[in-house]
Amino acid sequence: MKHIYAFNEGSRDMKDLLGGKGAGLAEMTNLGLPVPPGFTITTEVCNYYLEQKDFPQGFYDELDEKLAELEHKMKKGFGDAKNPLLISVRSGAKVSMPGMMDTILNLGLNDETVQGLVEKTDNPRFCYDAYRRFVTMFGNVVLGIAHDHFEAALESAKKEKGVELDTDMDAADWKKLVGVFKQIVLEHSGKPFPEDPRQQMELAIVAVFKSWNGKRAITYRNLHGMSHHMGSAVNVQSMVFGNMGDDCGTGVAFTRNPSTGEKEFFGEFLCNAQGEDVVAGIRTPEKLSALHDTMPAMFDQLNEVQRQLENHYRDMQDIEFTIEKGRLFMLQTRNGKRTAKAAVRIAVEMMHEGLITKHEAIKRVDPNQLNALLHPSIDPKFKKEVLAKGLPASPGAAVGQIVFTADEAYRLAEDGVKVILVRKETSPEDIHGMHAAQGILTSTGGMTSHAAVVARGMGKPCIAGCRDAQVDDKAGTLMIKGQVYRAGDVLSLDGALGEVILGAAPTVEPSLSGEFDELMSWADEVRTMKVRTNADTPFDAEVGRRLGAEGIGLCRTEHMFFDEDRIMYVRQMILSKDAEARKEPLAKLLPVQREDFKGIFKAMNGYPVTVRLLDPPLHEFLPNTDGKIKAVAQEMGVDFEALKKTVDALHEFNPMLGHRGCRLGITMPEIYEMQVRAIFEAAKAVTVDGLKPIVEIEIPLVGHVNELKFMRELIDKIAVEMAPLNFAWSVGTMIELPRACVVADQIAKYADFFSFGTNDLTQMTFGLSRDDAGTFLPYYTEHHILEENPTETIDQEGVGQLMRMAVKLGRGAKPGLEIGICGEHGGEPRSVMFCHEIGLNYVSCSPYRVPLARLAAAQAALRD
Amino acid sequence: MKHIYAFNEGSRDMKDLLGGKGAGLAEMTNLGLPVPPGFTITTEVCNYYLEQKDFPQGFYDELDEKLAELEHKMKKGFGDAKNPLLISVRSGAKVSMPGMMDTILNLGLNDETVQGLVEKTDNPRFCYDAYRRFVTMFGNVVLGIAHDHFEAALESAKKEKGVELDTDMDAADWKKLVGVFKQIVLEHSGKPFPEDPRQQMELAIVAVFKSWNGKRAITYRNLHGMSHHMGSAVNVQSMVFGNMGDDCGTGVAFTRNPSTGEKEFFGEFLCNAQGEDVVAGIRTPEKLSALHDTMPAMFDQLNEVQRQLENHYRDMQDIEFTIEKGRLFMLQTRNGKRTAKAAVRIAVEMMHEGLITKHEAIKRVDPNQLNALLHPSIDPKFKKEVLAKGLPASPGAAVGQIVFTADEAYRLAEDGVKVILVRKETSPEDIHGMHAAQGILTSTGGMTSHAAVVARGMGKPCIAGCRDAQVDDKAGTLMIKGQVYRAGDVLSLDGALGEVILGAAPTVEPSLSGEFDELMSWADEVRTMKVRTNADTPFDAEVGRRLGAEGIGLCRTEHMFFDEDRIMYVRQMILSKDAEARKEPLAKLLPVQREDFKGIFKAMNGYPVTVRLLDPPLHEFLPNTDGKIKAVAQEMGVDFEALKKTVDALHEFNPMLGHRGCRLGITMPEIYEMQVRAIFEAAKAVTVDGLKPIVEIEIPLVGHVNELKFMRELIDKIAVEMAPLNFAWSVGTMIELPRACVVADQIAKYADFFSFGTNDLTQMTFGLSRDDAGTFLPYYTEHHILEENPTETIDQEGVGQLMRMAVKLGRGAKPGLEIGICGEHGGEPRSVMFCHEIGLNYVSCSPYRVPLARLAAAQAALRD
Repeated sequence: MKHIYAFNEGSRDMKDLLGGKGAGLAEMTNLGLPVPPGFTITTEVCNYYLEQKDFPQGFYDELDEKLAELEHKMKKGFGDAKNPLLISVRSGAKVSMPGMMDTILNLGLNDETVQGLVEKTDNPRFCYDAYRRFVTMFGNVVLGIAHDHFEAALESAKKEKGVELDTDMDAADWKKLVGVFKQIVLEHSGKPFPEDPRQQMELAIVAVFKSWNGKRAITYRNLHGMSHHMGSAVNVQSMVFGNMGDDCGTGVAFTRNPSTGEKEFFGEFLCNAQGEDVVAGIRTPEKLSALHDTMPAMFDQLNEVQRQLENHYRDMQDIEFTIEKGRLFMLQTRNGKRTAKAAVRIAVEMMHEGLITKHEAIKRVDPNQLNALLHPSIDPKFKKEVLAKGLPASPGAAVGQIVFTADEAYRLAEDGVKVILVRKETSPEDIHGMHAAQGILTSTGGMTSHAAVVARGMGKPCIAGCRDAQVDDKAGTLMIKGQVYRAGDVLSLDGALGEVILGAAPTVEPSLSGEFDELMSWADEVRTMKVRTNADTPFDAEVGRRLGAEGIGLCRTEHMFFDEDRIMYVRQMILSKDAEARKEPLAKLLPVQREDFKGIFKAMNGYPVTVRLLDPPLHEFLPNTDGKIKAVAQEMGVDFEALKKTVDALHEFNPMLGHRGCRLGITMPEIYEMQVRAIFEAAKAVTVDGLKPIVEIEIPLVGHVNELKFMRELIDKIAVEMAPLNFAWSVGTMIELPRACVVADQIAKYADFFSFGTNDLTQMTFGLSRDDAGTFLPYYTEHHILEENPTETIDQEGVGQLMRMAVKLGRGAKPGLEIGICGEHGGEPRSVMFCHEIGLNYVSCSPYRVPLARLAAAQAALRD
Repeated sequence: MKHIYAFNEGSRDMKDLLGGKGAGLAEMTNLGLPVPPGFTITTEVCNYYLEQKDFPQGFYDELDEKLAELEHKMKKGFGDAKNPLLISVRSGAKVSMPGMMDTILNLGLNDETVQGLVEKTDNPRFCYDAYRRFVTMFGNVVLGIAHDHFEAALESAKKEKGVELDTDMDAADWKKLVGVFKQIVLEHSGKPFPEDPRQQMELAIVAVFKSWNGKRAITYRNLHGMSHHMGSAVNVQSMVFGNMGDDCGTGVAFTRNPSTGEKEFFGEFLCNAQGEDVVAGIRTPEKLSALHDTMPAMFDQLNEVQRQLENHYRDMQDIEFTIEKGRLFMLQTRNGKRTAKAAVRIAVEMMHEGLITKHEAIKRVDPNQLNALLHPSIDPKFKKEVLAKGLPASPGAAVGQIVFTADEAYRLAEDGVKVILVRKETSPEDIHGMHAAQGILTSTGGMTSHAAVVARGMGKPCIAGCRDAQVDDKAGTLMIKGQVYRAGDVLSLDGALGEVILGAAPTVEPSLSGEFDELMSWADEVRTMKVRTNADTPFDAEVGRRLGAEGIGLCRTEHMFFDEDRIMYVRQMILSKDAEARKEPLAKLLPVQREDFKGIFKAMNGYPVTVRLLDPPLHEFLPNTDGKIKAVAQEMGVDFEALKKTVDALHEFNPMLGHRGCRLGITMPEIYEMQVRAIFEAAKAVTVDGLKPIVEIEIPLVGHVNELKFMRELIDKIAVEMAPLNFAWSVGTMIELPRACVVADQIAKYADFFSFGTNDLTQMTFGLSRDDAGTFLPYYTEHHILEENPTETIDQEGVGQLMRMAVKLGRGAKPGLEIGICGEHGGEPRSVMFCHEIGLNYVSCSPYRVPLARLAAAQAALRD
């Protein structure tokens, strides 16, 4: 096996082996661009080293060989006291990654070779400056000695000399400082600074490898769902110097504006500087126009190179370059990171320029990025103070006074005050407060907790499971890292990043560009899966339609039950002794439910609306205080104590596994009957207005075919009673229990459609509750027990396997069975792609995720 | 299709079609025994009628034909005024079933035919007696008129006449009463009594059909896990009369003693009577010896018949006969019901008599029956007053004063008082009280609730989910149907029947016979699955061994944590801030755990012991009162308020889906590490005594292969540290999450064995909690949504399908992988058979169920 590739042996297609940087250097070399020669040690060596704590067999021979080649090419000797070869050592994973060791420059310098360099360059100040930089970088990055120590020594040297700027230091000063720095190295590492260039190089290579498993790198990969098994390559490259005089310099540029996407050559340049000076922020770089003004020939050559690179890569490039004494050297090219806005504009414009095809344009935008386009965001220019981080449960920015109860949120919002609702966790009783709030912050719960799900549905920013926040709603305090915040204190939330920010952060409103619409229309042309929205209100339905939803995949009827004007009847319904006593409250609920459905059918005219009959455990609706119980008792004319006992008796140990879903519909059929009548009456009513409702009645939590059979018979009976029904209607079921997947063939016989409820299916399959998993799921992903959080993206090998089974069995029993998904995963791009792969007809997600799903569905279709 | 079979057209093999009674009558007819001629209408006609509300095409023609044949055979005419044919109409399902319509005798009588009968018999009193009996039975059974009405009329007639006994009534009296009875029929049914015999017959047939779906019949089938789709046959038979004089009579007999199994002709006889007189209990029947004395020839013939029938059926027969004027008629033969004791004795003795083979003997005993042999029972002679019925959660009889707290149970038991612990539901904190109590009664929870599982493990009677019982432990009251019982009141429990009985019922102790041991040894010869026991203590382990367990399939370590002397350390362990702080309590727990394991290894010397590492959610161990929290806070030297907050923070919404199982072992590895060390140390220690422990360490709640991989590495590391381990040990996992079944191939790579935890697997697959399902599962089985309760017997098409998958994938990845089951289903006969079918190596169940499992496993092996 080959362990090391010279730049001219690699290519852009070898990113897995050479890393992003190495592949870019190789490609540029092959294009004939001016790249300082060098070689890349593969990611395989890295992985081998991390497992075996040693280099693979034959590695040293190859290294010798490549080094000799490089010396030959450069006509210099590594460690040669007369004509020393200096190199840089850089990490280079497949995807660039903060937290990895970055760069060691000027490697190869020691007390001997620096002399040779002085002789060659006749610039002792430059040489000793380079030397002291090298010792600092090596000491810091390779030997792990804090930067402060070197910094302090430099400061004290300057003080001693009575100067303020580095530029005031001369060769002798730097030389003396090199000695001081080496002393620091000896003190802190217990060993003298390695003078042998070969040893320097090996230590640097190992440092790159080890930095792959550094804490920050791991955190980064976890946050970005990246595999921990890729490893990093190491790039060894001959040095070029941008700091040898005013005909030198270094810069970073983008072939298009990465912020706006505008087609302009965009970047920064620093004259007479090494790259690290730009990074360190010691001097402020100038715009590229400065280069145009001072070295027009250089600018023209660079401009030509960037044009060539963009045309070659057919994507916006992020490039690094150095000018050494009037010669241009390219040090990096890679696809440039860009904002969502820029991503969309660049993709669409490149298509119009003929650079890429429509299909490529679709593939160029990461669906997850679209979030940022659809929600307001914290002004990136704002210097924010992040108090705590939680789960980015629902994107967008929110600013407001904190409040601790839904009622208070509602009251203040009525008065026009902007509030942020802070809770341990929300419950359905908080809905009105969540609606009223700008954003929601919870200290517990995961990405699919009640707060997260409802907030996403509302398109409201939400940070869930913020473990650093301690909420005491009785005391009315929020404690973050020892600091107490009270009602009225102003905080800001960045729901996309999960950041709780001190004070009122300025926000930027989203605006959807023409390019956005164009890209979406291309996506719609190619995708084969439909995209629907989850919507419980006419308002949500309209938002969904505006964002391209082709129907409602999940209309939850339970949220409708919480409105102030009906919760009393709902409670009466639940607490009634028998079917007879339930009649009265049900009769009162029927007309309000009918009005709910009319509004939704109007908003979704001509598109299917899947209405799920009542699902959650009844006790969610129960009065939870004595006062509320008293009110219901009075209304019902029953004894308070007796009613309290009834309420207690409805308590469940594991409500998720309790008396819910169709179990309600079966044991108290009159509740579902009322709902079905309300649905049919609403559909009839809007038909009168010339509308075309398409009604899909969905039975939740079916595990056994008889449950669906029972419900279907009930609905068919009602349909006969209410005939004629002059609109399309059908009956189907959620597939959200493992058992339903296993017996999907039986269930399909009574179902016109299936809809995967992957929230519950994931909970049951894994045996974990979304509300409680916060105690171990974060630990699991941090420690690689699970690479990904299954409540965020479908667990394809477990849950997904059951879904495959259900699709196969269901369609086997009923060819052409319509199957969709309405769990939260329906708006998560990788899950959407999986749904396409297993042949679903549609995905459904919260309104603000509809564009993501449309794009992801298109990308999935293009993968076929 | 043939709808009706004359008795000589059927056979014993046609039970499905002809029902048990019909098949018996046919078989006896074919054997040439004296059976009154008749015919059987098939179960198919019944099912057709119940669905279509009408008879199938061609039915009437067949009925005419069969009736004509019968008239011809009997030389009488149905409805013939001169020579009337009288018939009986009886139901006859495949399995005899209380709650079904039983019998209409003397059908065919009306005002005309009764005259003919008088002329033929010259016995008007007999004829009008028969007529009034017919009107009563028909009115009651077919027309649904309460018996009381007829009873009252009879009483008032006797009063009027000034007599007390029926025998004092003469022909005229009966005749007059027939008129009165018909008036009652007219009044209550709104129609005159049907005079047309053909109409009488059809109405009676329909009544049999409808009684199949009578409430009691349905309840019976539900209770016995019988299908509701079998339907009942109808037997129409010419009448014979046992009440025509002293040379007449009727009786019921068994070919062996159904109570003891002794080989003796055993039964009852009533001279000059109809069968219903025996049933009604108006007269007390005599022993068969009375027949021997009064009609020796009849007795000899009957004795010959019973011998012939037993030899023919090769099983103990339950027969009915009538003697009409010195002629013997056989009316029924069927395999006789018998006590468990009799079943075992009969099977073993018949084998020794050469009547049946060993294999047949094994198949003759219903494993479920063995329960009764292993537990004390309420004396069947006791006239019990059943206050309420709950789920028969754990068999046996218990008598004692009721108490409402575990502490009180413990305290009183210490003083030698026998108590019954009454709770809404038990929790692990109640274990000491459950141990101390004679029996346990809970008002909520199902067959696999905590109370039920633990009680079965202890072999203690338990009634769970007794919905008629309202427990108020604060007030210290148990309310049953309005009556309040307080601590100190004495109740009895029949755990096998689920009956709560008033007062102290006398009980009968079990004694295992030599036949029992012999039958078990035959079972052990043929079965291929091993049977282990679930045992958490040396005592349980010894009980299990004594009952034939070949190892421990599940040793739960959590129960060990509740003992008074260690719960404090357990609480400290849980509430510690970090691993460092957990060290101290863990160090204290290690030696006590080691002693636990030593005792168990000793008891199971040479047999495998599967030890499951800590499983339940930690909060089960938490102090649940301020007082207890204070005690722990003091012991730990931490602040009470802070500790209270920690306790609150550990609260889970759905503990079943929370931080439990290997999730604990992964996030707090030091807990499992302590347990593994304790296990290894214990095994080492007993090895010193020359014992041979076989240690199987089991990881609970594994859903992802990485969980097991992580734990296996931890255990391997400890094993290396503690080497040499001079005993057999292995590491495996529970398969109790649907995901584990789906990815069993991956998991198998790190598992030496699998053990199905079907309690949890059922809960997750169905999405139901055993603690909460009481609100809908009973409704489900009553209303045929589910034919069977999946927490009692494995849901083969759902949960079983996942098990099949896991076995296939697991053995595919690791051929010969040892797989067992340790859920409660491991002691349920049908589930045991299913486990055999899918190829498990062993089942494990609570000690007192081990014999059931041994027998069921043998029966399963014999089915192959």
